[in-house]
Amino acid sequence: MADKPRILVTNDDGIYSGGIYALYNAMAGIGETYVIAPDSEKSAVGHAITISDPLRVTEVERNGKFFGWAVKGTPADCVKLALKGILQFNPDLVVSGINQGSNTATNVIYSGTVSAATEGTIMGIPSIAFSLTTFKKSDFSLAAEIARLLAEKVLEKGLPPGTLLNVNIPPVPRKDIKGIKITRQGRGYYEDFFEKRVDPANRTYYWLGGTKLVLDTEEDIDEVAIMNHYVSVTPLHYDLTDREMIGRLNEWNLKLG
Amino acid sequence: MADKPRILVTNDDGIYSGGIYALYNAMAGIGETYVIAPDSEKSAVGHAITISDPLRVTEVERNGKFFGWAVKGTPADCVKLALKGILQFNPDLVVSGINQGSNTATNVIYSGTVSAATEGTIMGIPSIAFSLTTFKKSDFSLAAEIARLLAEKVLEKGLPPGTLLNVNIPPVPRKDIKGIKITRQGRGYYEDFFEKRVDPANRTYYWLGGTKLVLDTEEDIDEVAIMNHYVSVTPLHYDLTDREMIGRLNEWNLKLG
Repeated sequence: MADKPRILVTNDDGIYSGGIYALYNAMAGIGETYVIAPDSEKSAVGHAITISDPLRVTEVERNGKFFGWAVKGTPADCVKLALKGILQFNPDLVVSGINQGSNTATNVIYSGTVSAATEGTIMGIPSIAFSLTTFKKSDFSLAAEIARLLAEKVLEKGLPPGTLLNVNIPPVPRKDIKGIKITRQGRGYYEDFFEKRVDPANRTYYWLGGTKLVLDTEEDIDEVAIMNHYVSVTPLHYDLTDREMIGRLNEWNLKLG
Repeated sequence: MADKPRILVTNDDGIYSGGIYALYNAMAGIGETYVIAPDSEKSAVGHAITISDPLRVTEVERNGKFFGWAVKGTPADCVKLALKGILQFNPDLVVSGINQGSNTATNVIYSGTVSAATEGTIMGIPSIAFSLTTFKKSDFSLAAEIARLLAEKVLEKGLPPGTLLNVNIPPVPRKDIKGIKITRQGRGYYEDFFEKRVDPANRTYYWLGGTKLVLDTEEDIDEVAIMNHYVSVTPLHYDLTDREMIGRLNEWNLKLG
């Protein structure tokens, strides 16, 4: 590591969001900061990458000075392009966020915020995703403080290859925070519905809505920790193998006839 | 289950692909088949879902008769919309594919094919993803035979909640197939590069390319099984928690100052 750590900052709410500005400021206090993020909101893109189209990049100012590079692409695109195209070096840390809205339970797999941190991890860089668990207009100061604490810790301790951290911060005053809890990903998900509507040209379309189901009660589940006013820190990996199922499948004795 | 099982067929290569037609024919032999798939190729979309835009649906014919519904959306959108909007019932099985190109190792997380099966699983339906591991114009007949074998087995045995199957079929003649192997997801990934180019209007753009790295040698890894001419069947889940890391993180003793 250089004298000052080099930190890549990205997100999925877009380079003009409030959350990335708060994260950038928090990281600027501990290292050299590079902001490379989508040019517009990319929520729920999951781990999408752009392979059939070119990626365009523009330089962006905020508050009258150079802020970073805006990419017409997904969060995972931003991390790939940052390391291999724009910066052409490996930063010491990738941070993604601060997302507006939780990234917990089953929703983790839809999350652009988490996918940016996953991409950093695949590319061998310790990476952390941060989310403030509310969609309301928010004060990011506590989340930024947590981001700095975690970033400093990860820079000091490192993370094993293949492991990232998914951090969710409840939207409560600092004095009401009970502490920081190491958690597991929950099983809750959105129960979907579609509204069937007709457009002005009399064509049918569908619009997705959903109601959040919380299916867990254990205190070390990400969503439960948040409800109990803890900061939730979940270690994630991207080996999706269901090891318990391997033995059972072997008993199926599958054979071509 | 009704007398005949009801099977939802989807993919990420689009409703006009050769692979989905082969899968549809294979499934028509064992049940009532409903095809609901993206209207165009959606490779590498990961687990993206469409929340900020409406979804449009059109009816599609192939070979002069009704084939299915084309959705202007992602594979995960198709499954959600199938169950909650178009069919309004839960099928007995969701199958996705037959994808052209492998979905193994780290690439599983970018896969639209796998994401459709994941979405089926989240919604409580046993689900399987099928991929033929070549980009060359292909004969899908062996892959279709495997798809039928696996679909019948899963309809008979079921799958535990939260578990899906990711099946990859090597592009070799049937007589050269060594068998069906239950595998784990490998660690290999694409080493990326970006070509920096200039468009006719003299604006810079980047285009993603990559070289596949195989990092595993164990015979029960998905990619290795394929290289050894086995059909690879990997049980996956979407609990991304890295359980080994939980104890280590607790030792970090994280606290707000």
